[in-house]
Amino acid sequence: VTELPTFMTLLGLSIEQRDEGEIGLRMDVPDGWMSPFGAVHGGAIAALFDTGLAMAVARRLTPADRIATHNLNVTYIAFSRERVLLCRTRILSLRRAVATVEGEVVTAAGELVAKAVGTFGIRRQEA
Amino acid sequence: VTELPTFMTLLGLSIEQRDEGEIGLRMDVPDGWMSPFGAVHGGAIAALFDTGLAMAVARRLTPADRIATHNLNVTYIAFSRERVLLCRTRILSLRRAVATVEGEVVTAAGELVAKAVGTFGIRRQEA
Amino acid sequence: VTELPTFMTLLGLSIEQRDEGEIGLRMDVPDGWMSPFGAVHGGAIAALFDTGLAMAVARRLTPADRIATHNLNVTYIAFSRERVLLCRTRILSLRRAVATVEGEVVTAAGELVAKAVGTFGIRRQEA
Amino acid sequence: VTELPTFMTLLGLSIEQRDEGEIGLRMDVPDGWMSPFGAVHGGAIAALFDTGLAMAVARRLTPADRIATHNLNVTYIAFSRERVLLCRTRILSLRRAVATVEGEVVTAAGELVAKAVGTFGIRRQEA
Repeated sequence: VTELPTFMTLLGLSIEQRDEGEIGLRMDVPDGWMSPFGAVHGGAIAALFDTGLAMAVARRLTPADRIATHNLNVTYIAFSRERVLLCRTRILSLRRAVATVEGEVVTAAGELVAKAVGTFGIRRQEA
Repeated sequence: VTELPTFMTLLGLSIEQRDEGEIGLRMDVPDGWMSPFGAVHGGAIAALFDTGLAMAVARRLTPADRIATHNLNVTYIAFSRERVLLCRTRILSLRRAVATVEGEVVTAAGELVAKAVGTFGIRRQEA
Repeated sequence: VTELPTFMTLLGLSIEQRDEGEIGLRMDVPDGWMSPFGAVHGGAIAALFDTGLAMAVARRLTPADRIATHNLNVTYIAFSRERVLLCRTRILSLRRAVATVEGEVVTAAGELVAKAVGTFGIRRQEA
Repeated sequence: VTELPTFMTLLGLSIEQRDEGEIGLRMDVPDGWMSPFGAVHGGAIAALFDTGLAMAVARRLTPADRIATHNLNVTYIAFSRERVLLCRTRILSLRRAVATVEGEVVTAAGELVAKAVGTFGIRRQEA
């Protein structure tokens, strides 16, 4: 069992194996991230995207390669009262030094909560 | 003493009164948000921006008004090994139903760590 | 025949009816928008997105409603040497006062050139 | 006299020398880029930013270096009926392979029309 980084626990994040071999990021939103109005905090969703998009890039690289978020653009579609959120990703481009990824955060029922596009810098280990 | 929302504690956020009557948001980054490489996690910075920018808008409204993040764009400038980060904001526009704000996250020494621009929807209480 | 706005001519834009009743925006890039290195200028692509995303929203409204771009985020994927570019769009949300749309600019062969997400304010005509 | 690229003429762009040795980009908006409602087209403003921000980076590089826009995020603040617009820029970071820049489009009277942040990839000529 690999221990998850602490921030993932703070956000209620877990990695789930999906049917088609895809790996996804799931957030079981802890109470502390719910607003007084019963909606998931936007900051938690942004952190979910930052983690989920970077993970999607990292899976295409070797463990020694390093990635850094250059830009993360999050568009919020709807407040979510649902406490289980999933982050789906699609790599738009993967080059030597830069990758672009889009992602959607959806409820378990598939309702769109937020959309993000990220640009990541890559520093590949020298062979 | 007002109790802070739990997510603020999870992120190490506190509100600080500044000289000129301005209010700022400060993050004393908890250990859990530091990467294995000793840098503040990008998701924590995004959450700091979401909170700080929304607060800057909220201070111009009445307590009964509601705001919702429509778009948050974060550009990461440099990794920060510093554990004390400040979020400075500037309102770009404030209209009846929409506000735009920019912000910078800087170290205590004033080094720029990240830049963000946010668009927020406003639902004003009916008079 | 409806006359197109002048800026559409300056950009080489035309509206094309697609099989499924969808309407798309096409750019036959004029010489002036090609860089010295033979690539379509990024500004032309941004203008194509601004027009195409707004059109996608406008088609869901009545002619008297007004829309304004609040935020346009463009991620450039690849330089295009191709002179025919298409803008595909998908409405992410459409509410009373705000709409969000994503779009992709692709070559005729379907190669992804750029991705955008836009947030638009709507001022609906009073009934 | 250096001849300007054609797209700059199509957009009414010109480079102006400012007092402090700074170079700025000015747009004398051609009729064709005005909307039926008398406002400058958002696409023209996006193209102005893409050009102005890239120019700000290019001036810090050697002529043989190449830059590519990775991400351009434009936040529209107010419609402009003014036909003379200026693009002010500030370099946020300039590294070997990536630069970030922010910019503002203002009227001659200094009114803020739009704000942008851009991320640019740099391919430096080999020494």
